[in-house]
Amino acid sequence: MHTEALDTPFLVVDACVLERNLAEGAERARRRGLAWRPHAKTHKSITVARRQLAHGATGLTLATVGEAEVFAAAGIDDLFLAYPVWAAGGRADRLRALAGRVRLRIGVDSAAGADRLAAALRGAPAQVLVEIDSGHHRTGVAPGDAGGLAAAARAAGLEVAGVFTFPGHAYAPGARTAVAADEVAALSAAAAGLAAAGIEPRVRSGGSSPTEGIAPDLPGRWAPTETRPGVSVFGDAQQVELDAIGFDRCALSAVATVVHARPGHAVLDAGSKTLGADRAPWATGYGRLPDHPEARVIALSEHHATVAFGDGPVPEPGSRVRVVPNHVCSAVNLADHLVVVEGGAAGDTVVDRWPVDARGANT
Amino acid sequence: MHTEALDTPFLVVDACVLERNLAEGAERARRRGLAWRPHAKTHKSITVARRQLAHGATGLTLATVGEAEVFAAAGIDDLFLAYPVWAAGGRADRLRALAGRVRLRIGVDSAAGADRLAAALRGAPAQVLVEIDSGHHRTGVAPGDAGGLAAAARAAGLEVAGVFTFPGHAYAPGARTAVAADEVAALSAAAAGLAAAGIEPRVRSGGSSPTEGIAPDLPGRWAPTETRPGVSVFGDAQQVELDAIGFDRCALSAVATVVHARPGHAVLDAGSKTLGADRAPWATGYGRLPDHPEARVIALSEHHATVAFGDGPVPEPGSRVRVVPNHVCSAVNLADHLVVVEGGAAGDTVVDRWPVDARGANT
Repeated sequence: MHTEALDTPFLVVDACVLERNLAEGAERARRRGLAWRPHAKTHKSITVARRQLAHGATGLTLATVGEAEVFAAAGIDDLFLAYPVWAAGGRADRLRALAGRVRLRIGVDSAAGADRLAAALRGAPAQVLVEIDSGHHRTGVAPGDAGGLAAAARAAGLEVAGVFTFPGHAYAPGARTAVAADEVAALSAAAAGLAAAGIEPRVRSGGSSPTEGIAPDLPGRWAPTETRPGVSVFGDAQQVELDAIGFDRCALSAVATVVHARPGHAVLDAGSKTLGADRAPWATGYGRLPDHPEARVIALSEHHATVAFGDGPVPEPGSRVRVVPNHVCSAVNLADHLVVVEGGAAGDTVVDRWPVDARGANT
Repeated sequence: MHTEALDTPFLVVDACVLERNLAEGAERARRRGLAWRPHAKTHKSITVARRQLAHGATGLTLATVGEAEVFAAAGIDDLFLAYPVWAAGGRADRLRALAGRVRLRIGVDSAAGADRLAAALRGAPAQVLVEIDSGHHRTGVAPGDAGGLAAAARAAGLEVAGVFTFPGHAYAPGARTAVAADEVAALSAAAAGLAAAGIEPRVRSGGSSPTEGIAPDLPGRWAPTETRPGVSVFGDAQQVELDAIGFDRCALSAVATVVHARPGHAVLDAGSKTLGADRAPWATGYGRLPDHPEARVIALSEHHATVAFGDGPVPEPGSRVRVVPNHVCSAVNLADHLVVVEGGAAGDTVVDRWPVDARGANT
């Protein structure tokens, strides 16, 4: 079957680009001497996770207990919940069950959260990593507070294995290099704090897709040990607009049909319910058209994307075009399946369909 | 079971608020003498659709053939696809099947689209409505071009029943009253164009949640006959910030847990994969907290909402809070089920769970 036989919109993955992204991601981590623990929230796919493991991933990163349950059920047994999970109610029981089943690490960023987690685990074998705020100002403690929190977590009965951070402030034009340095410095300072509290900070985990290719030249005692990129498995328009990748590294796109055309503009049938509505303040639109690099998605409704083509030709109604989402993690989570092709764009032969196994696993 | 027993995040619908919204929506349409054909893309729920019909809806509006198939399979037999559907490939066969099963109306906004639709239907009994651009500049033709397009559609073999518009430019502060007038004027002018082409414009269909309560004082020959609000069944933060409703009309919210707190701020476990990432330029944040009206959701990641509480008290980690999404249609489409309570906020007894039957029905 060719993709032409599928009704639009749908998400298509070029497995050849994916394989190159996987090989390059693994190699980037290897060159820096880092364990590679990609974030599975991007693809939510058991098939893609297995490919990551085949390329040398040491395990997966997840954001929710529900995601971890999906991958654990598939037999993937080394999981890090990079989130300050609040381990109450049913979630406490689910965490304890998970800890009995896989090698599990869990984030903590408060003494109250650590107490709650210890009560939930009841001695089940999980490790915790202290979350550090390296400048993104979302969750995590200041690097200088990591030692104290680690000691509190240990006192609560938890096994503290190290520290982690997400340098999300890399998502700004021109910020990547400086943020990569922030990240390493924050992890290093936090790790030193743990060591001073008598806790060996074996794991120093960082990483993001914009910073993963950057190796800051910083002192080494407590250098990072692990990287957790998510988006780069597929790439997306944000990464292109941050100059982290080119369109040739975008493995996933939405295939859409032009339903309306007027001078300079077309409207596509892929809207926010296909692409996601993510739009950073610095983004040039709501996604990009790799075959029309000058085009901009200037407006997005649920089932309409309005594309401005400038002086270029406007595709006719009924034409199919590809749109690379701004944020691929959001687009994937809206789909039940990914359509898989090899070596090309829309119009190719469908070689597989991969379910989005952890779609909607938010709890 | 109480909602406290459910792991967060989840979407909760207060059935009492919903019932009031339904009764008021039906009454607003009745007062204006309009057929009430709510847009089911908001709720995607067979249960909610049946309640709308019980309150007097003449049928449903849908955006995609896939949505229409879900409601048709549930026995709902009067459907309007308010979209310039491109009727090619598998979609052509699906449209024809649908036309043989339910009373079906379909949007057209180009002669090419009308030709394609006529070829797809092969005489199957559907009506078409010509889409008019009343100022939103998304799809649709200028009112003055409606007569010509209607004649072309008729020449292609289609039965033209009238005109429709979506006045999406009402989604701007202070715009509602003027846009409601635009809408009526555009429908009226377009209908006159059809009449001049010898086509009776029986159906003049408009409506949006921001404008549905406004009845412009405009001349009557070709006044609207039908209204198609979507969002107002549940309400959302956009409607509140447009002054279309108060929080007391918000029937749906996400229940989230505070996972992190620091002075002035808390981080919740409901992010863009629960709330959707929609944010109009004029929105004050990424959703609103009805129990903390001064709070603002200043940042959103996939599983983090960062809330600024100003000088107010910050809820402690482990607390539950409710967040009304900016755009409820996007939030609902991210959930598999809606948790139903009656007469209250989080903490109430769960009386039902309604599947989001048409979730992801994008094609």
